[in-house]
Amino acid sequence: MSSDPHSGDGASETTVCIPRDALVAFASRLLCAAGLSDADAGLAASALVNADARGVASHGVARLPVYLDRLHRGGTDPRAQPVVERRSGAVAVVDGANALGLVVARYGMRQALQLAKERGAGVVACRRSGHFGAAAEYALMGPPEGCIAIAMTNVNAAMAPWGGSTPLIGNNPIAIAAPAPGSPFVVDMALSTVARGKIRLAATRGEPIPPDWAIDGAGKPTIDARAALEGLLTPLGGPKGSGLAIAVDILSGLLSGSAFGADLVPQNRYGQTQDVGHLFIALHVAAFTDPDNFQNRIAFMLDTIRHSAPAPGYDGVLVPGDIERDNERHADEHGITLHGRTYAALLRAAVALGVAAPTDVSGVRYG
Amino acid sequence: MSSDPHSGDGASETTVCIPRDALVAFASRLLCAAGLSDADAGLAASALVNADARGVASHGVARLPVYLDRLHRGGTDPRAQPVVERRSGAVAVVDGANALGLVVARYGMRQALQLAKERGAGVVACRRSGHFGAAAEYALMGPPEGCIAIAMTNVNAAMAPWGGSTPLIGNNPIAIAAPAPGSPFVVDMALSTVARGKIRLAATRGEPIPPDWAIDGAGKPTIDARAALEGLLTPLGGPKGSGLAIAVDILSGLLSGSAFGADLVPQNRYGQTQDVGHLFIALHVAAFTDPDNFQNRIAFMLDTIRHSAPAPGYDGVLVPGDIERDNERHADEHGITLHGRTYAALLRAAVALGVAAPTDVSGVRYG
Repeated sequence: MSSDPHSGDGASETTVCIPRDALVAFASRLLCAAGLSDADAGLAASALVNADARGVASHGVARLPVYLDRLHRGGTDPRAQPVVERRSGAVAVVDGANALGLVVARYGMRQALQLAKERGAGVVACRRSGHFGAAAEYALMGPPEGCIAIAMTNVNAAMAPWGGSTPLIGNNPIAIAAPAPGSPFVVDMALSTVARGKIRLAATRGEPIPPDWAIDGAGKPTIDARAALEGLLTPLGGPKGSGLAIAVDILSGLLSGSAFGADLVPQNRYGQTQDVGHLFIALHVAAFTDPDNFQNRIAFMLDTIRHSAPAPGYDGVLVPGDIERDNERHADEHGITLHGRTYAALLRAAVALGVAAPTDVSGVRYG
Repeated sequence: MSSDPHSGDGASETTVCIPRDALVAFASRLLCAAGLSDADAGLAASALVNADARGVASHGVARLPVYLDRLHRGGTDPRAQPVVERRSGAVAVVDGANALGLVVARYGMRQALQLAKERGAGVVACRRSGHFGAAAEYALMGPPEGCIAIAMTNVNAAMAPWGGSTPLIGNNPIAIAAPAPGSPFVVDMALSTVARGKIRLAATRGEPIPPDWAIDGAGKPTIDARAALEGLLTPLGGPKGSGLAIAVDILSGLLSGSAFGADLVPQNRYGQTQDVGHLFIALHVAAFTDPDNFQNRIAFMLDTIRHSAPAPGYDGVLVPGDIERDNERHADEHGITLHGRTYAALLRAAVALGVAAPTDVSGVRYG
């Protein structure tokens, strides 16, 4: 058992450590027991554990109980298979058929990458999908294929448009990854100022929040974390993030023919289909420029940033993706650390589904 | 003569009003006199005046003296013609040949739209270009062709990467436009928290600025507008805008084979080529979904936003592009209002180039 100085929440201060492979296998068993094929369960489990390995626990196996509940209560169809329903040159539209978002998104990006290799660029819109986890997971499929890849999705409304007070837009994330020597460049950002989790943490600690993080139920900026939880997230940078989030909804929701705006069903209506839309853009570097020259140039760009003078109060300058790469190396060597509460929820699901728990778990003192 | 309550700067408080067509003709004569062909001069003049008509004076004819200086001193080649140097499926790479950025960008987006109509999507990277003015100008070429269009460019370094203190990235703008009944949806944003002009205005007025707008010469956040002018702009939303600006440099600079990062030459080195890179993405709506249905759905989305409850302190909720559309209607009816100082600079250029000034200028009391 170790203590997590960042949690600030007594109930989650136990942690467990599990080898990456064992966690993938466990998550995969759970998804198989919920009705997914072995192949789909393996892909979805890997996607979630990748996020944990990269230190993005908010989009890792902590999400699994919600996905399992939706599979159990019929909101997500475990046996459905996404299919290309429309093709036109460098474009495809995928009907996600209400399969797990993690499965639909992977399929969609694979189509985009295939198109990019054949036609230089590939653009794939997916409809009838669900919450797809971390956007970076799909963007990161690009670099090993010599592609820059862009992944975006709409999510259920969590923000008001700038100047408004009604939740009409999600904090729709965008991720962009590019090949680079050593490890890829990758940005992955929700279009709110901060994630709701940061506000929840401040509320738990009884701390105020900065005035630009949230609006209260009446639409006014608030520094009261509890009032903020009753209200809405603010868009990143105000009107700019608001406009960009609407643009992502147009590209993900409207172009694919899925739900959009306030009509997108939140995940926690477990029995209802979500009808989420995604957009994937893949650009084959070799169609634009010499790939070796591109690698040299991006290495120069990113190393120049890494070696530049830090601002006062900073130890160094990082390139997006550096922290996650280091986290992943650490996880591969030392295993993945989960909050005790996250692991407990997985164990409860395992009992309910009759699935064996992992045996090679260390540092646990749960239950 | 009228007074502009927003300028806060005595010298620019005179304004003049010119019919849109007359201003286009005047700008076009100036560019012809600087060596551009009639066709290129007309296109570039229209692009600049469009920005003025839409109320984006920072990217309108106020920029013309700099473009003219660059043409005069050899930094930009007035007779050069952009050319597609590489084609591959849905992708093209354009050699801007050091023509005016406004000319290269229009050519590049036209190629992207053509590809989108043939192949569903078109992606065009331009290298050896220059400052292209307002990104919205090119994104807005999409909607009349039934396309969603995305325009982005790198610009010379004005920000430090997050955690750094050295100018290594531009506040690289992105614009996205989509067809919608009545008028298109369009966002156009630089990836800094604010434009430098806002800081200059605060400095002129002797007012402090918010602590998140800029860092001083030592890399520390500052509320002193004068210290901020000696320092750097901050990226929109901190690390998110920093990562996104790097991504735009990868997509615009690296993919096209142009300059990037700190190597991009600022416009005011008038005799030097800039080697700016752009990226244009066009998506033909009809390749994805029924265009009429798309129009109905986007109208519903945008009208829902417009009719939603405003936040306290706001009169209503606007969709990106609404203000600019209203400005443009006003300009078409009443003419375009220019700052006296902007008009004076154009008149000086006209004298130097032996070009006739417009005759139908009202409200002027200059010189």
